Amino acid sequence: MCEFYATFWEEGLKTAAKGKTNVFILADSNLPEAYLEEVVEVLSPQIEVNTFVLEGGEGIKTLEHAQVIYNELDNMGADRKTLFVCLGGGTVSDLGGFAASTFKRGITLVILPTTVLAIVDAAIGGKNGVNFKSEAGLLKNQIGTFHSPEFIGYNPSWLESLPSMEVRSGWAEMVKHGLIQGSGELLGELYGCCDNEPVTLKKIVPLLKSSAAVKEAVVNQDPTEKGGRVVLNLGHTVGHALESYSNLRHGEAVAWGLVFMLETSKMKNGFSESEVRRLQDWIVKGVGVPLPEVASGGLWGLMIKDKKNSNGTVTDLLFRKSGDIGMDFIWKRDEFTTLWEQFRSKFV
Amino acid sequence: MCEFYATFWEEGLKTAAKGKTNVFILADSNLPEAYLEEVVEVLSPQIEVNTFVLEGGEGIKTLEHAQVIYNELDNMGADRKTLFVCLGGGTVSDLGGFAASTFKRGITLVILPTTVLAIVDAAIGGKNGVNFKSEAGLLKNQIGTFHSPEFIGYNPSWLESLPSMEVRSGWAEMVKHGLIQGSGELLGELYGCCDNEPVTLKKIVPLLKSSAAVKEAVVNQDPTEKGGRVVLNLGHTVGHALESYSNLRHGEAVAWGLVFMLETSKMKNGFSESEVRRLQDWIVKGVGVPLPEVASGGLWGLMIKDKKNSNGTVTDLLFRKSGDIGMDFIWKRDEFTTLWEQFRSKFV
Repeated sequence: MCEFYATFWEEGLKTAAKGKTNVFILADSNLPEAYLEEVVEVLSPQIEVNTFVLEGGEGIKTLEHAQVIYNELDNMGADRKTLFVCLGGGTVSDLGGFAASTFKRGITLVILPTTVLAIVDAAIGGKNGVNFKSEAGLLKNQIGTFHSPEFIGYNPSWLESLPSMEVRSGWAEMVKHGLIQGSGELLGELYGCCDNEPVTLKKIVPLLKSSAAVKEAVVNQDPTEKGGRVVLNLGHTVGHALESYSNLRHGEAVAWGLVFMLETSKMKNGFSESEVRRLQDWIVKGVGVPLPEVASGGLWGLMIKDKKNSNGTVTDLLFRKSGDIGMDFIWKRDEFTTLWEQFRSKFV
Repeated sequence: MCEFYATFWEEGLKTAAKGKTNVFILADSNLPEAYLEEVVEVLSPQIEVNTFVLEGGEGIKTLEHAQVIYNELDNMGADRKTLFVCLGGGTVSDLGGFAASTFKRGITLVILPTTVLAIVDAAIGGKNGVNFKSEAGLLKNQIGTFHSPEFIGYNPSWLESLPSMEVRSGWAEMVKHGLIQGSGELLGELYGCCDNEPVTLKKIVPLLKSSAAVKEAVVNQDPTEKGGRVVLNLGHTVGHALESYSNLRHGEAVAWGLVFMLETSKMKNGFSESEVRRLQDWIVKGVGVPLPEVASGGLWGLMIKDKKNSNGTVTDLLFRKSGDIGMDFIWKRDEFTTLWEQFRSKFV
């Protein structure tokens, strides 16, 4: 079982390193050097530590980079008792988690997320993945495994170097967790801290753990995505396609995916018009980036390929009413085209 | 749970294909075409079937070949409900199992082994893997996952096209299963059928299931190789190194690994000299290939890197007495050098 933000990161990390041969830390070169030094200092009195830095970003999520890591692991004399630590955002743990899960059929993984998005989302749930360029196009996150970290921990002060766009992008996944949490408690707190005011790190740091806990509860029910975990895809059907098609960050694309999901919930399920309007205004203001000009055809092609879809249908999640999400809406292509184009003319 | 040779292969395969989107069959091009046609005919009344042939052999176990498969899967419109079938020997299921376990984080796998070795060993237990060429050398099977097939089945008539060397290579793993089975029943049957007579397919076919059952019982106790499964490495410490260093087939290398293990058990543990002599003579005659000229230094370098070793030590398995295998023998390099050179002068 994963020890999920249960102890201070220093303690959790030291515990995970006990009885190991050595430690490999994969770190994002975009981080201030002091963060990696801080992690090395925690471990080095106890065990041999090897570090490797890569510039984080979607571009590192390839099998070629996994091979660079395998080579580094071999160079340092890694064995089945080597501890693999990821220090960085979601792209570092997506790649690092994949490498750790496939090197000698799986070595122990610790994730130390350094972004809001990674803390509340990417680090949790054991999913890793790299992208693959097929003849037909880029398959995002479609090569990967489930490999749960033994420990996840973070230092809130690492977030202080994040650009505000990155904070807002992470905030969008917190909003998603607020929307799927049955009780509405997190959504209320998010509203309370950031309504009519710009989203800032200081306001959301106290809510990181409760946001992460929403995801944790969902994945514990469904660790290998056989059923209930699909609720985490709220806003992601269109969100993922938008992310592939534009320069939006993941959270920014998800924010617009949520705004579209709300619009569709209103049109198809009669979800409260006033609630939709209030949530849409709040999300659009909070995320702070405009909807890119993307036509429905391009999105549709990507939605069809999404790994959670099968048999050529696009399944989506829509609100029926507050706190009640239906997970079996099936898009007809014509209907999607009409609704997306209406949405686009309203929001672009 | 894997349905392990429990039903006829046709029935098991049809059951596994129920409710799937389509089927991808990865087949060894060395097989007679009729085998693949036979498998396609079983499925095609029920579901769309796509086939892809690759020339089996250790050379296909690379990440490059995995990528070729991902591309084929994407071309055929594979999704999370695609069934992945491997038809061939262990190299086909090692590669195919890896591709199936990483494509969209894992799709359903069926293995239809077509060699003795694959039936009694490679197909069972969920381990897959590819080789990786690091700066320091070839890392065999060190990139992989655990991904259990949903069904394993075979047609005994597929074995009839096997070269006799391939049959004898598979027989060596059956001997290993005979040695580790506490009751000695399988070893007795193997002795009975092949003592003082060449190993033939006809004699060992009736023993395939009981040999496979020995492995199945071990892996069910330890699916992810945390402990007891290590007993399956009997004869493999030196066997794997010999295989890497020479042109021996896997089973041939394991046969010589077992012969050396028996020698060491006699020298270090006082294991019965007469029993060692009898087993060694039988294995050497049965496998029918000479011990290659390999010096101890090269073997040692490979043994140190074996994925089951950690902390720079080489752990091995030796008999203490009949039916009693100790799993914690630790080699000293000097001692290995001496014993290997003695062994070599005796058997080469």
